[in-house]
Amino acid sequence: MILNNIDHIAIAVKNLEQSIKLYEEMFGLKCYLIEDVDDQKVKTAFFKLGNVKLELLESSDPQSPIAKFIEKRGEGMHHIAYLVEDVQSSLIELEGKGVQLIDKYPRTGAENLNIAFIHPKSTFGVLTELVGKKK
Amino acid sequence: MILNNIDHIAIAVKNLEQSIKLYEEMFGLKCYLIEDVDDQKVKTAFFKLGNVKLELLESSDPQSPIAKFIEKRGEGMHHIAYLVEDVQSSLIELEGKGVQLIDKYPRTGAENLNIAFIHPKSTFGVLTELVGKKK
Repeated sequence: MILNNIDHIAIAVKNLEQSIKLYEEMFGLKCYLIEDVDDQKVKTAFFKLGNVKLELLESSDPQSPIAKFIEKRGEGMHHIAYLVEDVQSSLIELEGKGVQLIDKYPRTGAENLNIAFIHPKSTFGVLTELVGKKK
Repeated sequence: MILNNIDHIAIAVKNLEQSIKLYEEMFGLKCYLIEDVDDQKVKTAFFKLGNVKLELLESSDPQSPIAKFIEKRGEGMHHIAYLVEDVQSSLIELEGKGVQLIDKYPRTGAENLNIAFIHPKSTFGVLTELVGKKK
């Protein structure tokens, strides 16, 4: 498996609206999409810098992984997502190499893409996501 | 100020060699540069995905910011760096907008670039770096 590009960097925030304002008014970016991802109980906002997306994540449920992350560590960088050709075959390859997965099978993420997470135990503390187009 | 591109994503690691191995052997990336940055008391390793660099940071001093970060939060994502046209004028603009800076003036970072950090208090927990070419 070869990772060719970073798909997005995700940031956990308490208040999506205030955070969007920061990136728009201070940094001159433009939010192009706000989307609820019910599966992960988050509301997301997207910006684009070159080919890389910046994703802000606000929890929509006190029991969501994002709510728990913020409770434990505070707001901040949450995960990094890489674009792969095929998520399922990448998962099989990584598991074969002894990498601990969170998702054995792709799920549907924001923008209707296939996504799967790798456990940060296998990546020296970095929650890592694979992203690919649905076939 | 307009951020056009992400320059790099930085990850704090305990052991640079083991971490390089992960990104090379598991993910198929290739480390193209290992560099000591004495000013920040770190040893860095760089990978490239498209136009974005992935930077691994290992502390070279128990009192360094990276050593303290790992002691407090463990290994993981450390900061995000954006490419700007001119670091100094961007700092002046941000300070004028009320953003709290760590560096009022650019310093020299890895790859002999001008760098400066913005305080995570002003960016909802995200340690944010500006990077630009020296003029």
